[in-house]
Amino acid sequence: MAKDKQIKFGAIIHGVGGSMTTWRHPEVPADASVNFEFYKTQAQKAEEGKFDLVFIADGLFINEKSIPHFLNRFEPITILSALAGVTKRIGLVGTLSTSYSEPFTVARQFSSIDHISGGRAGWNVVTSPLEGSALNFNKGEHPSHPERYKIAEEYLQVTKGLWDSWEEDAFVRDKESGVFFDPEKLHTLNHKGEFFSVQGPLNIGRSKQGQPVIFQAGSSEDGKNLAAKEADAVFTGHETLEEAQQFYRDVKERAVRYGRSEEDIVILPGISPIIGSTTEEAERKYEDITNLVTIEAALKFLGRFFDHHDFSQYPLDEPFPELDGIGSNSFRSGTDKIKRTAKEQNLTLREVALRSATPRTAFIGTAEQVADRVQEWFERKGADGFIIGSDVPSGLHDFVNLVVPILQERGIYRQDYEFSTLRENLGVPIPENRYTAAKSKVKIDA
Amino acid sequence: MAKDKQIKFGAIIHGVGGSMTTWRHPEVPADASVNFEFYKTQAQKAEEGKFDLVFIADGLFINEKSIPHFLNRFEPITILSALAGVTKRIGLVGTLSTSYSEPFTVARQFSSIDHISGGRAGWNVVTSPLEGSALNFNKGEHPSHPERYKIAEEYLQVTKGLWDSWEEDAFVRDKESGVFFDPEKLHTLNHKGEFFSVQGPLNIGRSKQGQPVIFQAGSSEDGKNLAAKEADAVFTGHETLEEAQQFYRDVKERAVRYGRSEEDIVILPGISPIIGSTTEEAERKYEDITNLVTIEAALKFLGRFFDHHDFSQYPLDEPFPELDGIGSNSFRSGTDKIKRTAKEQNLTLREVALRSATPRTAFIGTAEQVADRVQEWFERKGADGFIIGSDVPSGLHDFVNLVVPILQERGIYRQDYEFSTLRENLGVPIPENRYTAAKSKVKIDA
Repeated sequence: MAKDKQIKFGAIIHGVGGSMTTWRHPEVPADASVNFEFYKTQAQKAEEGKFDLVFIADGLFINEKSIPHFLNRFEPITILSALAGVTKRIGLVGTLSTSYSEPFTVARQFSSIDHISGGRAGWNVVTSPLEGSALNFNKGEHPSHPERYKIAEEYLQVTKGLWDSWEEDAFVRDKESGVFFDPEKLHTLNHKGEFFSVQGPLNIGRSKQGQPVIFQAGSSEDGKNLAAKEADAVFTGHETLEEAQQFYRDVKERAVRYGRSEEDIVILPGISPIIGSTTEEAERKYEDITNLVTIEAALKFLGRFFDHHDFSQYPLDEPFPELDGIGSNSFRSGTDKIKRTAKEQNLTLREVALRSATPRTAFIGTAEQVADRVQEWFERKGADGFIIGSDVPSGLHDFVNLVVPILQERGIYRQDYEFSTLRENLGVPIPENRYTAAKSKVKIDA
Repeated sequence: MAKDKQIKFGAIIHGVGGSMTTWRHPEVPADASVNFEFYKTQAQKAEEGKFDLVFIADGLFINEKSIPHFLNRFEPITILSALAGVTKRIGLVGTLSTSYSEPFTVARQFSSIDHISGGRAGWNVVTSPLEGSALNFNKGEHPSHPERYKIAEEYLQVTKGLWDSWEEDAFVRDKESGVFFDPEKLHTLNHKGEFFSVQGPLNIGRSKQGQPVIFQAGSSEDGKNLAAKEADAVFTGHETLEEAQQFYRDVKERAVRYGRSEEDIVILPGISPIIGSTTEEAERKYEDITNLVTIEAALKFLGRFFDHHDFSQYPLDEPFPELDGIGSNSFRSGTDKIKRTAKEQNLTLREVALRSATPRTAFIGTAEQVADRVQEWFERKGADGFIIGSDVPSGLHDFVNLVVPILQERGIYRQDYEFSTLRENLGVPIPENRYTAAKSKVKIDA
């Protein structure tokens, strides 16, 4: 039976909640961000819901103003690997910065997770928004926003090149003849570029899904171009369907301009559904979360998008202050959006801060209402799927237990995993090894 | 009951065997070095034997002459993390080079494994012997041997400093008052040294065993000094008890000169026991392994200690060639030892190559004989314990099933794990947080 296009889901697991104060919610284990049992339970719940993937975010700089769960949390490569051992089918995607790492090591580590998990690894390529990161990595200066994206692009060329070091059937392992590998299928990259010089070959072979899945999460012009050119999936965030549709169309069109097909890249907005047995109960749950937020915490959270700028110096109930230049080298798209919305809607500082800390999304209501909204965004081309965030652990459980069965019933979401690899489940292509491809091209030409 | 000192054991897991040709042994799964089920089974077997730890080696450069299992193997951080999820009590130790990585990242990754595993992580600090590594990491030149050790020493100061970023009880997590952490217990390192400039703090708290256990495996003068000053454990290798005793005494004395106690550092020679139901059967098993080795493979293996020098150019049955300078910047102690032994014993190239490829150790025989030898090395101060390598998977199984019960019976090896952390099981001290220590010193002085 030919199936219609199916919706995709990921679960972002982030310990003690996404905001400054959610750790205070009675339901949240306050040590969740370093609690392996918590991560394992969440990942296994997502797998029970046949989710495509779990997602682990990251950052490389903290100070006393950081969001609590950023202060003390698992490093992505390690927690993804640990989850690989205790899950069977779900994809394992994590953030790692191209501004403060070595392509040889990162190519190896993601490939190794891909082998350990049987083809379920994904890498969310980021360029590190936080200026302070440079201080932890022997660099005087955080590279500028455009420079970071130039580095990222070359970095991806190197890692993808290293992942092609060995063709699929390079390891012969013939005990009789003593031939372990076919030297014709081993390739040395010899990359020499503007930022990197990496010889190769990589000391790990091709994985079951060819290469780890590439995610990208930047929404700036540079970010969207990198995604359109190099990524298999985009993790984004939108408040309205219109905004989501515009972004969706924009990225797919860019991908086509780079010679790819629209289906080669999946767009996954992050949403934080809040589900109640009635609309009123869902609203009460949302209020419970917003009530945890103090204005002080909200100002700190807002500061995060402006290089930890101190917003406590401004009057709360006057228009959002002019902040020329501040924050332009970090979370550029997020920062620009906050400034733009504040101006367009003539918001006060207090309003901007509280909205940033607990954004009100379209996904609050009964399971049926949330399922309707999910289906609407999916069918009206705002999303190929969603990354489900939940400020309280029961958020994911409610989604899996209550919303997933409705979507399955409607025939737009899988009853079980179709494939064993993340690429195949997401429906993005398995990249052919460049050397194998060149050989088969020669054959066809001949 | 006060227990006498107990022997310690680790298991090195290295996929398809330690040499060029062991992958051809009928018992060895030829894909073992990228087979998670293989690693999991070996680690769980070692845990069944109440071993202190599993050990994962590493290297950063391959070419077509490399040992087969180096060509295609798991990266240590990832496989250790994956094993953390599927084991309960055994320590998880892996190699990572200080010459080609960032202290902030490495401190984080090992600390994260330490948290995931509940205090079972260990880091084998190496400086990368292989010249070619520089080509994979944007560096024109591999740093010289003494330079690498200077880098390593500063690197360890940085990582240990980062591991003290948070005092033990820094995370208050009081939901009522909204206090997540105590700012008095958060410390910024601000390291500025010759090679590194790292601000901190680290974005993960103190682990259950305080800090990951530090292993060191270099046997050069620089290597022994670094071990004596900074390491909790030394992984070494010796052919005779006398050699082992000399090394043991040497490192313990150096540790004492650095103001430490002899008990603060454990010495663990690697051995590859071969066990038979009779002496003859054990000898036959040894022959089966040596018979797999061709002289071509042995010459390649030998080349590894001399920067992949091509030994096929020399006559096989004449004295080992003079090789001034070659290999002095890589595996220095191993290279020096090969040269010295060849000269002292007047060996031919063929003899040197075959001995290097399958060294004949003192640990071949019946379970009783191997247990005797283990006990002798332990009691006569050649070792505090051993890292068990096995060229065939049944090597570890035989050791756990047959030798371990004898040592338990003799009262020199644990019946069960005494503790939950690697440090406590190994009997090395839990380092006090430097800031906590300074505060309690002020209190005592006052």
